[in-house]
Amino acid sequence: MFQAAEVPQKIPKGEFEQAAEQLRVELLNAQFDLRERDFSVIVLLSGDDRPACAQALKAMHEWMDQREIETNALAPPEGPELQYPAFWRYWMRLPRRGRIGAFIGAWDVDQISGRLQDDVDTTELDRHFDRIRAFENELAADGTLILKYWFHLPKKKLKKRIKKAKKDPERVWWLRPEDEIICDRYDQLMPLAERLIRKTNTGHAPWTIIGSQDVNYRNLAFATHLRDRLAERLTVGEPEREVTSARAVAEQREPRQGRVHTVLHSVDLSSQLKKKEYDERLRSLQADIRRLTYKARDKGISSVLAFEGWDAAGKGGVIRRLTFPIDPRIFQVNSVAAPTEEERAHHYLWRFWTKVPRAGQIAVFDRTWYGRVLVERIEGFASVPGWRRAYAEINDFEEQLAASGALVQKFWLHIDPDEQLRRFQARENTPFKRHKITEEDYRNRERIDAYTWAIDDMVAQTSTDYAPWHLIPANDKRFARIQVLETYAEALRKRL
Amino acid sequence: MFQAAEVPQKIPKGEFEQAAEQLRVELLNAQFDLRERDFSVIVLLSGDDRPACAQALKAMHEWMDQREIETNALAPPEGPELQYPAFWRYWMRLPRRGRIGAFIGAWDVDQISGRLQDDVDTTELDRHFDRIRAFENELAADGTLILKYWFHLPKKKLKKRIKKAKKDPERVWWLRPEDEIICDRYDQLMPLAERLIRKTNTGHAPWTIIGSQDVNYRNLAFATHLRDRLAERLTVGEPEREVTSARAVAEQREPRQGRVHTVLHSVDLSSQLKKKEYDERLRSLQADIRRLTYKARDKGISSVLAFEGWDAAGKGGVIRRLTFPIDPRIFQVNSVAAPTEEERAHHYLWRFWTKVPRAGQIAVFDRTWYGRVLVERIEGFASVPGWRRAYAEINDFEEQLAASGALVQKFWLHIDPDEQLRRFQARENTPFKRHKITEEDYRNRERIDAYTWAIDDMVAQTSTDYAPWHLIPANDKRFARIQVLETYAEALRKRL
Repeated sequence: MFQAAEVPQKIPKGEFEQAAEQLRVELLNAQFDLRERDFSVIVLLSGDDRPACAQALKAMHEWMDQREIETNALAPPEGPELQYPAFWRYWMRLPRRGRIGAFIGAWDVDQISGRLQDDVDTTELDRHFDRIRAFENELAADGTLILKYWFHLPKKKLKKRIKKAKKDPERVWWLRPEDEIICDRYDQLMPLAERLIRKTNTGHAPWTIIGSQDVNYRNLAFATHLRDRLAERLTVGEPEREVTSARAVAEQREPRQGRVHTVLHSVDLSSQLKKKEYDERLRSLQADIRRLTYKARDKGISSVLAFEGWDAAGKGGVIRRLTFPIDPRIFQVNSVAAPTEEERAHHYLWRFWTKVPRAGQIAVFDRTWYGRVLVERIEGFASVPGWRRAYAEINDFEEQLAASGALVQKFWLHIDPDEQLRRFQARENTPFKRHKITEEDYRNRERIDAYTWAIDDMVAQTSTDYAPWHLIPANDKRFARIQVLETYAEALRKRL
Repeated sequence: MFQAAEVPQKIPKGEFEQAAEQLRVELLNAQFDLRERDFSVIVLLSGDDRPACAQALKAMHEWMDQREIETNALAPPEGPELQYPAFWRYWMRLPRRGRIGAFIGAWDVDQISGRLQDDVDTTELDRHFDRIRAFENELAADGTLILKYWFHLPKKKLKKRIKKAKKDPERVWWLRPEDEIICDRYDQLMPLAERLIRKTNTGHAPWTIIGSQDVNYRNLAFATHLRDRLAERLTVGEPEREVTSARAVAEQREPRQGRVHTVLHSVDLSSQLKKKEYDERLRSLQADIRRLTYKARDKGISSVLAFEGWDAAGKGGVIRRLTFPIDPRIFQVNSVAAPTEEERAHHYLWRFWTKVPRAGQIAVFDRTWYGRVLVERIEGFASVPGWRRAYAEINDFEEQLAASGALVQKFWLHIDPDEQLRRFQARENTPFKRHKITEEDYRNRERIDAYTWAIDDMVAQTSTDYAPWHLIPANDKRFARIQVLETYAEALRKRL
């Protein structure tokens, strides 16, 4: 889930200042419009990067009208606060309609890092997440716009920063015990943070994870997102502006939040494999997979293998190599095309539920339920609330698969546009492959940008510990095949 | 929660047949209209009264077009079903858009009565309820109309019926082991059923509890409710019909579901108390309350005492007698009038959160958050989805109070219309009470019926084990005061 936020981003000072000037005007305008409206806005700042939250708040104060922002920097509850129901202190601080309430340290982070000091009681934590969800539901039903941000820094960077601060008397003052706790227990904290985000990531109170390595980037990403969501919400009820705004979103002029690189940027496409090495490793991996899948069948462990990727990235070839050694009685390849009339008459997940493997079986999906947040999002087949809600629905679906004992692995096969064009042309020149290439494929190429950002969101929102995304470099087909087979064999081995 | 459903209802055969004929036409029409629409309908039949579910299903089949109803009578999962995620079997049975799926034994009841055979694990049960909520959320977001019915029979009646069936060879065939389990473990089952209903009672998938003693009543109540919700939903998107339908609902022509009597019917208003006995008991109770409230303060147990009742039912007098012996430092009486400008700028529950007592303190509310589902509902100050959602929100609010250690007790002071009129007139003739009577009070009298049904719904939806409603007969003021003080003293004593 934090994978996408770890892609390095950098925004030069000049560019930042120019963007900031524009943002400032728009944020002030939005704030001004908000005053006349009958809903309030809650901005929740949190994350493993504590100073980044404080700086984001500072940016809000610099760029907006301070007098209209109610700031709530909350320490863990103490004194009289402990004599009330836990959420009382949040109710007391709710902004009134027409105003913005900014919260630091509210309803979650403390809870999580607090737990880290003792043993972590997941049940109690889940109950707390339920409470958050119910609370946000009520506020959202009342009209409140809720925006939640998680500022994320990789462990190494966090460590380095603390080390540096300790040596520097000019900086050591901001260091607090929490920072060291987060750093020391990073590996326990992050799965809990992922769980928090997953369990409380709803259509009406979504989380946005922002990589906080570069200060310009993170402030810009935060403020851009805030501006766009404010603008979007403020146009509700103004039909003309509403339509334009909805179209902009559907067509992928979604906030890129100042991101320079998407998660695909971190995929090293130069990896290659020689024919001889490929043949050897393929043979050995296929033998492993044959053995492991029999064993999994006997133990009742099922597998759900989801394949997505650019057109011509080689999904079919990978799937053939993967299933070749498996007993046909225990696997089923599902090729997902446009939904049938019967499928359209049901919930979009229904057609995938009908293909869920029973214990011990393997279901391979060539294209998947992620169509909802890729093609359906970009072509406008799904409504904006529809695909936004889908991330949580998909996480929930996969969690049910995993909870019933299934191994869920998701693969994105990545190639670059040049390689794709080469393959398209090669297909046109190969008689038996010509049917695989249509005008639509070329048309999709025009939308590479839109898809790239949608993929970035998809990985950010749905790569979970129980159902991870694997981004596979596929410019070299051999390398891609071996990597997929290896990943699956390894995951099976671990589970068995 | 089941209190309101235990009020005896009876519909004579002739009346039933006449109503049924009309209903049949309307249900068939609704079903016909539904075919052209892009949403499906789920009707969930469940309850402690198993045969009533079966008969309600039979009624659906008799009164509607069978071919368009998909019936799913589910036994506990077995065989291959166990090899899939738990909700797979429900996904497989979802009706397509334009159709109705009727479910018996789906997603809950078995789970609950199954648990009864072993120890009950509330955590696991709650997790299951979460799953139900998430599942229904997804379906509702996709447009599905979800209606859930719980058929309820008091324990005595259940026992009697089983005894009778056992003796009668013509009837014994329908008796199944479940029926006896439900009966034997009734006292454990009902709190779990209440929990189920509370946790999964949402605005978009509401529960309706139907008393099932009289077969004509229960079928009529069920079918009327089904018809009204179908009609309501089918008018969405047809502006003109929509407005009319919304108005009908706001103005309290809410489905009375064939109910003859409301929960207030069961309150015996003839109870009286002689002056001498009253004085003695009052003195002794006040001494108890003084002692108990000090003790509660020391132990940090707070009290939330909510008073509602008809105009002139004597709330003020009761509250004065109740608080008289209590140390003024530990209680606060909150008189709730129309919300202030500041209060209107927040969520409707906000103004009550601000008055939540801290540990050891007592908050008395003269009128309460129940205004949302009484006056705001009836006068149309709250939208229909707004007040429908409020039951769950209020249960949630009170659960948070109770979970933080507060004792929550709710009192409805009941008088009959004649007594009310007498008191109004007496007030007008008493100079220092004249200000207490306004034209509005007389206007409210015209809405007694509407209020009566709203109170019935309120008690049905919000009387919980942790925050029960007490319906106090108040035609005799002395009797009412003693009963309230006694109830509170008893509850405090039990808690301490």
